[in-house]
Order: sequence, then structure tokens, then C-alpha cells
Amino acid sequence: MMRTHDAGTLRTEHVGQTVTLAGWVARRRDHGGVIFIDLRDRSGSVQVVFREGEMALEDLEQRAHRLRAEFCVQVVGEVVARPAGNENPDLPTGAVEITATALTVLSESAPLPFPVDEYSEVGEEIRLRYRYLDLRRSGPAAALRLRSEVNRIAREVLHQRDFVEVETPTLTRSTPEGARDFLVPARLKPGSWYALPQSPQLFKQLLMVAGTERYYQIARCYRDEDFRADRQPEFTQLDIEMSFVEQDDVIELGEAIVGALWSRLAGYEIPRPIPRLTYADAMARYGSDKPDLRFAVELTDLTEYFSDTPFRVFQAPYVGAVVMPGGASQPRRQFDAWQEWARQRGARGLAYVTVADDGTLGGPVAKNLSDAERDGLAKAAGAEPGDAIFFGAGHPADARALLGAARGEIARRCGLIDESAWSFVWVVDAPMFERIRDDKGNELGWTAVHHPFTSPNEQWIDRFEDDPANALAYAYDIVCNGNEIGGGSIRIHRADVQERVFGLLGMDEHEQREKFGFLLDAFQFGPPPHGGIALGWDRTCMLLAGADSLREVIAFPKTGNGFDPLTSAPAPITPAQRREAGVDAKPPAGPGESPTAPDVAAPN
Amino acid sequence: MMRTHDAGTLRTEHVGQTVTLAGWVARRRDHGGVIFIDLRDRSGSVQVVFREGEMALEDLEQRAHRLRAEFCVQVVGEVVARPAGNENPDLPTGAVEITATALTVLSESAPLPFPVDEYSEVGEEIRLRYRYLDLRRSGPAAALRLRSEVNRIAREVLHQRDFVEVETPTLTRSTPEGARDFLVPARLKPGSWYALPQSPQLFKQLLMVAGTERYYQIARCYRDEDFRADRQPEFTQLDIEMSFVEQDDVIELGEAIVGALWSRLAGYEIPRPIPRLTYADAMARYGSDKPDLRFAVELTDLTEYFSDTPFRVFQAPYVGAVVMPGGASQPRRQFDAWQEWARQRGARGLAYVTVADDGTLGGPVAKNLSDAERDGLAKAAGAEPGDAIFFGAGHPADARALLGAARGEIARRCGLIDESAWSFVWVVDAPMFERIRDDKGNELGWTAVHHPFTSPNEQWIDRFEDDPANALAYAYDIVCNGNEIGGGSIRIHRADVQERVFGLLGMDEHEQREKFGFLLDAFQFGPPPHGGIALGWDRTCMLLAGADSLREVIAFPKTGNGFDPLTSAPAPITPAQRREAGVDAKPPAGPGESPTAPDVAAPN
Repeated sequence: MMRTHDAGTLRTEHVGQTVTLAGWVARRRDHGGVIFIDLRDRSGSVQVVFREGEMALEDLEQRAHRLRAEFCVQVVGEVVARPAGNENPDLPTGAVEITATALTVLSESAPLPFPVDEYSEVGEEIRLRYRYLDLRRSGPAAALRLRSEVNRIAREVLHQRDFVEVETPTLTRSTPEGARDFLVPARLKPGSWYALPQSPQLFKQLLMVAGTERYYQIARCYRDEDFRADRQPEFTQLDIEMSFVEQDDVIELGEAIVGALWSRLAGYEIPRPIPRLTYADAMARYGSDKPDLRFAVELTDLTEYFSDTPFRVFQAPYVGAVVMPGGASQPRRQFDAWQEWARQRGARGLAYVTVADDGTLGGPVAKNLSDAERDGLAKAAGAEPGDAIFFGAGHPADARALLGAARGEIARRCGLIDESAWSFVWVVDAPMFERIRDDKGNELGWTAVHHPFTSPNEQWIDRFEDDPANALAYAYDIVCNGNEIGGGSIRIHRADVQERVFGLLGMDEHEQREKFGFLLDAFQFGPPPHGGIALGWDRTCMLLAGADSLREVIAFPKTGNGFDPLTSAPAPITPAQRREAGVDAKPPAGPGESPTAPDVAAPN
Repeated sequence: MMRTHDAGTLRTEHVGQTVTLAGWVARRRDHGGVIFIDLRDRSGSVQVVFREGEMALEDLEQRAHRLRAEFCVQVVGEVVARPAGNENPDLPTGAVEITATALTVLSESAPLPFPVDEYSEVGEEIRLRYRYLDLRRSGPAAALRLRSEVNRIAREVLHQRDFVEVETPTLTRSTPEGARDFLVPARLKPGSWYALPQSPQLFKQLLMVAGTERYYQIARCYRDEDFRADRQPEFTQLDIEMSFVEQDDVIELGEAIVGALWSRLAGYEIPRPIPRLTYADAMARYGSDKPDLRFAVELTDLTEYFSDTPFRVFQAPYVGAVVMPGGASQPRRQFDAWQEWARQRGARGLAYVTVADDGTLGGPVAKNLSDAERDGLAKAAGAEPGDAIFFGAGHPADARALLGAARGEIARRCGLIDESAWSFVWVVDAPMFERIRDDKGNELGWTAVHHPFTSPNEQWIDRFEDDPANALAYAYDIVCNGNEIGGGSIRIHRADVQERVFGLLGMDEHEQREKFGFLLDAFQFGPPPHGGIALGWDRTCMLLAGADSLREVIAFPKTGNGFDPLTSAPAPITPAQRREAGVDAKPPAGPGESPTAPDVAAPN
């Protein structure tokens, strides 16, 4: 080692010792005969003093004077107590400094594209392009260390419970699912392609058939999606599967992991058991399957209330409302902005009513209502004088989603969210299926809400075909502060049930065999009942780090369009590479396609 | 949980308890009124007795009689001591059995493609096609569990030394190196492609520039090679990098990890420090850069001895020999087989001499030698009466490689290898470069022996261009029983040195910028001295498992041509997938290509 001590660990107990340090020049003050630097390594930093007489003149003049920020140096020196009054109580090493006796410049630094400190605001593109400088800053460096600890703590919990870590393949089979697969040409079988896995779902189920019983993996997964703001083409999940379990067993394990992480890394003891909400309740009360319960605002269902309404807009299968406390005083242009906000979410607008201090209703909707409707409305919606009431009407799913989004927006605008709070909830009893509708709203087939390997619950397993829209699954998502951080389900383990689900999703027998024949085959040989969960690891780390972007907890993240500003990937390939990879070999006639949802319980 | 106890844990102390078990029917004997099964779960197995009168007649008649091998069942019953004389001392649970009171068949099994037991020999293709049955067998299941422990123990060592686990990207940039990259079309940037990494080499070096100082990752790597017998297109390495270190520091860490693994999983304390051999010595004495030192046979250098030889074949830049103890008595056809063996390795043949019991030399070569050469040969080669001497003559590298291979073959044929022994050695002082020669042996440029990021040692760093063939690197490989299980190097951290190495490898400035500009840029900003190592994790696990194929320690391995017999990957894709992926977008004019070796220190 080129050092004897870590810079950040030096204390008064080291006074008198000769130490060798190695690290970077963090700050530098040159007073002519005396030069001070803060020498930083990953343990912290310490002040080093280069002083005439203490070291070879050559070291001082040829080297110390030439030091600049982020030079990489090795320093030999003596630990001395700082002169009384010169201590720096803000620095763990602030009671001492190093009187340098020798200096070696290990490498120099060109002028920096941005200062390597905690204070400077730097644009993200430039941070990522020079990620190796960005990561020298204490915040980004700490995020990486935290992530390493997240892994370690989770593995510890799983090891204590006798889980086996198994690596599953990433060059695997394309089974066209909801999200697109990334594809890899197979040079040795031209015309054939591997796919990168959207999750290890099928392999972990095969491991259950194999009798592994308790599997986990911190698994890299891939989804070729149109990158929304905070998506990465590759992401990581803690992937878990267990045999001979029921839903409560998996939920208990999920709580043990999340509990250990928050206890040890956020200093927060999650009250357990974590409360559960049914999917139906979550949608009805919060307009979301991942409700943020740090604030109490709820949706109210006014469908019944408006059952005889003269107002055409409210003559709908569902009418709901959400109250904005104190919202009546917003100026007109702010209500206009709400309309725009709603239109950006695909709604026609956002109907609203204001409740004046004397209880009078205002706003354009009020005059369309009957007298009776007006009189009882504030009470029915739970509004107080001074509040505004926003409405959603139409198809229940759409209208609730709009109100749920409005609920979140209200909380942000009104400062209802305690940013220091943690709120966890399980959303259970999710539906098995949802309708596929075309652009015009025509109902086509069904798609799986979780994924097609999710088991219907006991009440529905023998008859989900009778009423697919209401059939419920053994599926559960864990939500933290409005973020889905994980999800899972009890899986189908009977071939006949799996075939019936595939059938309802529109796959004929040929297609089932073509895509999932190996799974159906495996289910012929005594498959055990099993279930599991996947925790979105990037998001979990992000929440624990208190970061507001997944990119903060990824060492080398990609930006919006899957671009890496550091290496400039992706990049053109040579014609020779293209030829060799067999990209242009003509494939034999391929199988068909069909829409089913992918199994990534907790994508980033 | 669908069970109260693990089957394999039941002992006499449980007698009298009512237990619920879940698992598979391993063996079954039906004696009419009494049925015995071995119930297996991953903890082991226990005998269950279904007896008339002890359980509902329906359970017995409708269910127990219908049980077949590998049915998945849940059994409720009482633990009873086996009748005296009926104990099975070979089974951990052999003192007890379960008197069943209830039986639930969780799932049935079709007739099996092969018996799920430890005894049956099953072809590999069928094992992999039904890997989920193969893994129910104790050997394959134990290999997966062992691998999980390998991970855990290595991480523990690294955690104690304050290493940070960092995930690096797998959708990254293609930098055409020695091995081919797997390519992934970038749908959002048509005409551009990602590459799957051959190793995290550049990212881990960037992490060192970033001040991470101690990095590790159990990393998936990819090489699109022509699959030799025991290669996998995706493989795993324990990837490590450290800053402010010298070669000895990395070697010490490598020994700590390997030491912990062998101590805890093979019950073997590796004598430390592990001995070191220079690359030159390894080649000279063993004809291999990964010599198996479990047996003592060495090559002898006879170049000097034959310096005036009349035998044309031995008028070569190098003549060496290896002795086969007792080999003189081989029949002629066996010597012919040796010729064939040598030709399959690209040699013209394998010259040999036999030493009769009276010291007379025999074989076709002997008569071509001078009297003096004949007289002293046995002694010079270290042969005893009754031995055979094999010769290699020509280019030293080729001739030594042939003799090294003969050395291994001799050891196998003569039973010189103690299969229970462990022998570790570091091979150090590897050369920086080797000549690229075309088919006719013409010398072209240079290629890197390790990879182009490997640092020349102190003696050569300023002048490797003067004599590239003899320039030495700070590079080290760890070898176990003739297998390279890991390798690494101190890296270049100075941009000028890196550019000089790239230059010697034939890359002009444009090409250097195009391929490695981001690395050279990073080296502008105070890069620390750094080095690392990668341990081939599949091979390490294979050795610890006592397996003879990497496939035994991979959950879902691929066969020869990168084919997965279970899922049938790779497979054709649909025209729609092809269109969407942007495979056929015309790329802009691409960069050139050049041969440099990849950085996978320990590929599988």
C-alpha cells in the first residue's frame, strides 16, 4: 500500500506519528513559504502543511508550489496537534494537521470542468460525462456506498432464512411480452437471437420446480422502453421466490427485508405488520395503486349523489371528487392551469367547484347542478368553507386515476407532505385481468394486470373465466411514500390453470407451446406451490439515499434516450462486426405476437 | 408455510410430535395395506408410512395408492421411532419415520425422462433439457448451494476490508477487442448498437479515477467466441480493483479470498504465501503459463546440448524434452498414437527416444544423433532406464507448449496426479507483448499478452518500445491444479504511457480517441495508481465442487453452440421485432478495427 493511514481517520491520538497518506488535493492555500492543502481520500480529509525547513527545498519548490486541485499525491509527514485556536471542529480530523516532510505527485490534473466539492450546482449532463469526477464528491460517493450496504443487509436477512443465491441466464429466449425485449444476434445460429431478460421470472419458477425452494438474486433486468424521465434500459431488482408458501409468508419476508434496510440505513423502525389496502380500496380512496399515505386527503365517491343530476358531464358511470384545502382562493388563472394540467394527462379538463367562506358554491360547474345537489355538495365531498372541490367523471378507472393525480398535486401545492415521514403500505387483492381497449375505447381482449403467471385466488381459480374483470389474484405490491418499491404474487403451478389463463389472454395452444412450452412441460413433473416478490433495487436505494432520481444511485447511468454521456454508448458498429454477428441472416418464419404484461414486479 | 418441519431435520427428539411436511415422493413401496415413501425436500428425506386405520380410508385409497415418483405432496403425521432393527443408519433421519394421518397431493408427475436419484447416469443433453428435474438430484442441487456459499464467503472477506460493491453497466460501448462482443441494437438510436461487456475493466478503472479506491462486483461478462467444449457465452467473474496499491497488495488479497474459500468449503488450508513462478520459468520448466504442480515432471532445455547436432530436426532455436517414466515399454502403436496426438495440436509429430533397461537408446530418432549425443542424452534429459524421452524442437513458444501438453498427458497416463491434492501458484512477470504472426509465420505487429491497460513494470515503463518482446508487465495469474482461476495486473494510470502502449499495438491517435477517448480523458484528472484482479467464478466453483465441467456449477448452462436445451434459446424473432429494434437502420460510416486482447483475466 502506498499509504500507512487513511486521511480521514487521523486524530489527536496519532500526534507524533509519522504517516504516509495518499489521495487528492481538495483545497489549497499558498502563502509563499507555507502551503496548506486538504488531502482527501475516501475516508475523509486532513490538513497538510508544507513548510520551508521541514522538507527538502526541492519538494517544496518543485512540487508543493505546483499543486493544484485534484492532483493525486502521496505525502509523508508527522501528525501534529493544531495550534490552539486553529482547530476545526466541523472536521473529524480538525484537531490535527500533517507537517509534510516529503511529497510525491502521483499524477496531475488538468483544469476541472466543475469544482469537486459539495456546494457547486452542476448540470446533470456534464456530471455524467465526467462521472469519475462527480463521484469524487461526498454526496455521489456516499450514494454508491449506501447501495453496497443495501445489498449486504438484504443478503444477510436472506442468508439467515436459508435462501440460496442463484444466477440465472441473461442471454435467453425472447417471449414477446408487454415491454420490448433487447435482442442479441446469435452469431453461431444466424437468424436466431437471444433476448435480454425483462426479469428472471420463468427461471426462478423453474428453480422452484427444481426443488430449490428458496431462491434469491440481485438481478440485472432489461426493458427496451421509450425512456420516460426516470427509466433506465437496464435496472436491478432483488428477485426472490419461495416454495410451499402462501401470500402471508412472502409478505412477511418482504417486511423483514425492508424493515432491516430502513432500520439500519434510515434509522427508521417500520411499524409492522405493514398495513394492507385492497387494490379496490386503493383505487377508490386514493385513485392510485401506489398511494402516498403521508397525507390524509381521500377521494369521495359521488356517483350515487349525482345519480339524478341534470349536469350532463356527471351523468357518468362514476363521479368522484377530491378536496383542495383552502383552494377556493386560487385566482382564476390557477384554475385554468389545473385544466391544462388535466389535459396533459389525457383528460378533457378538471371540473371544479369553490366553496366560499359563507358556504356558497362558485365556479362554472356550480350553476349546472340542481339546488339539492348544491346544498349538500360540500358535506358530501368533505369540503370546508374556503376549499375547492375537483371532480372526475367517466369510466371509473380513468376518472379515479385523474383524481388520484390531482390528490398528489394538491398535496405538493398545499405542502401537505411531511418529507421526513415514511409511509409503507401493501396493496393486495389485485385484479387478474384488465380490458385492452383500442384508441376509440372499444373493448378488445384481456391483458394480465400483474403477469400471466400470477395465480387467481382461491375464490376465483376455478371460475375466473366467468367474470374476468372481477377475478382477483394473489398479488401484492409494497408501496413506500407513493413509490411502488416491490411486488409479487403467488404463481400458478398447475399446467391446466396456466393454460386457461393463457387462453383467456388470447393465446391459442400453438402459441402457448411456442412461447411457454418449457414452462408447461415443467409443470408436468410435480411442481410445488410457489410465490415470490421482486424489489425494485434502484428505487429502494434512491429512497434510502434521499435522492430524487434513480440516476443518483447508479454508478454509470444512462440519460433520457438510453445514452451514456461518458462512453457515448450506443455507437455505430463496423460492417465487419455486423457481418460477423449474423445480423442479416434471414430468419425462418417466426411465431406470432400477442400482448401480455411482463413480469417485472417493481421496475425502476 | 405449508409445512411445520423440514423432512431432513427430523430426529428421535421429535418423536411424538405431529408434523406437517411438504416435498416430493422420492421412493415408494406399496405393500397393499401399507405404503412407504421417502419424502424428500431440500433438507433431505424421511420415511413416511401410510397405514390403514391411521388415516381416512379415502386418503389411503384415493391418494396414497396413486402416489408415484416425484409427486409433490403435503403429509400430516406423527413422528415415531422406527421399530428396533428397522433403523437406517445411512440416513440422518433413519431412526424415525412418520405415521401419516393425512395426505394432500399438491401436484402429480408424469413419467420421468430419467430417475431422480444419485445413481443413474444420464446424458447431458437430456439433463439440461429437464434441468428442473436434474437439479432435484442431490449432486446438482449441492453444486448450486455451494456456489451461493462461494459468493457469501468472498463478499465477507471483501467487506471486512472495506470494499464497495458497485454494479457497472452491461449495455455499453463496443470497443472491438480480441474476443467478439455480443451486440444489442439500440432501438432509440437506430444504426447504433450497445455491446455486452467482456469484463467491467474500463468501468472499474474509471471507478478508481472516481476515488472509489476499493471496488468489487460479482459480474456477468460476455464473450462471443466459437464455443469450445467448456466455454459459456456468458460467464461470471469476481471483479476487483484497488487504488494506491502495488502488485503484492493485490496478490495478498487474492490469497485471502482463495484461502477463505478453500478453507471453508474444501477443508484445505492453502499454505501462504502461495509460491510464485515467473512466466519465463513457468514456460521453461512446465511449458505452460498455468502449470499443474501436483506432479513433478519438468521440461529440460537441450538446446545447448544439441548445439552441434547432425540431426536436422534438432537444428532449431530451441530443443527441449520431457520424460515419460516407464514409457520405453509402450508398444509401437502407442508411440504412433502420440504422433497423432501431437498432430492434433498442430505439431508435425513428437520425436522420441526410448531408454532400454541397459541404457541403450531406441526409437527412430536415436540413429540420427551423434554418438556423443546418444551417450549423454538420458542423463541430460533426466531419464532413467525404462523411460521414454519426448522432444520438442523449433520456435521456443511452440515447442514448449507441445512439451507442456505432453507433460500433462504423461501425468494422466502414468497416474502421476494425486486427485485429492491442491496446488496453487502465482505466475508473475508476464511479458507485455507478443508478436502477431500470420499463417505463414510472418511477424506482423504486437498484441498485448494480458490486455492493453496492463502496466509495464518499473524496469520497462520508460523503454518498452526498445524491446517489446522482452518487456515485462506487473501482471499475475493465479493457477490451481493447472487451471487459471484468476488474473490481474497493475494498470497504466498515466495517459502518456497508455498512449504509448496503444501506439505500439498499432493504434493511431484517431483510433485511440475513437475507442478509448473517455479513458484517456479520465487520466487527465489526477488518476491514482491502481490495480486489480478478476477471479473466474465459474471455474473457481467448479474446482471447489469437484466437478469436471463448468456446466455443473451453472444453474441453466448452455451447450456447445450457445444453445439452451431448456428454453431453446436463441430463437427466431418476428419481423415486427426486427423492424422495431431498428436492426436494419443504416449505420453511419464506422470506425476501424484492430486486434488487441480483451481484459478478462480469468475467463471460464
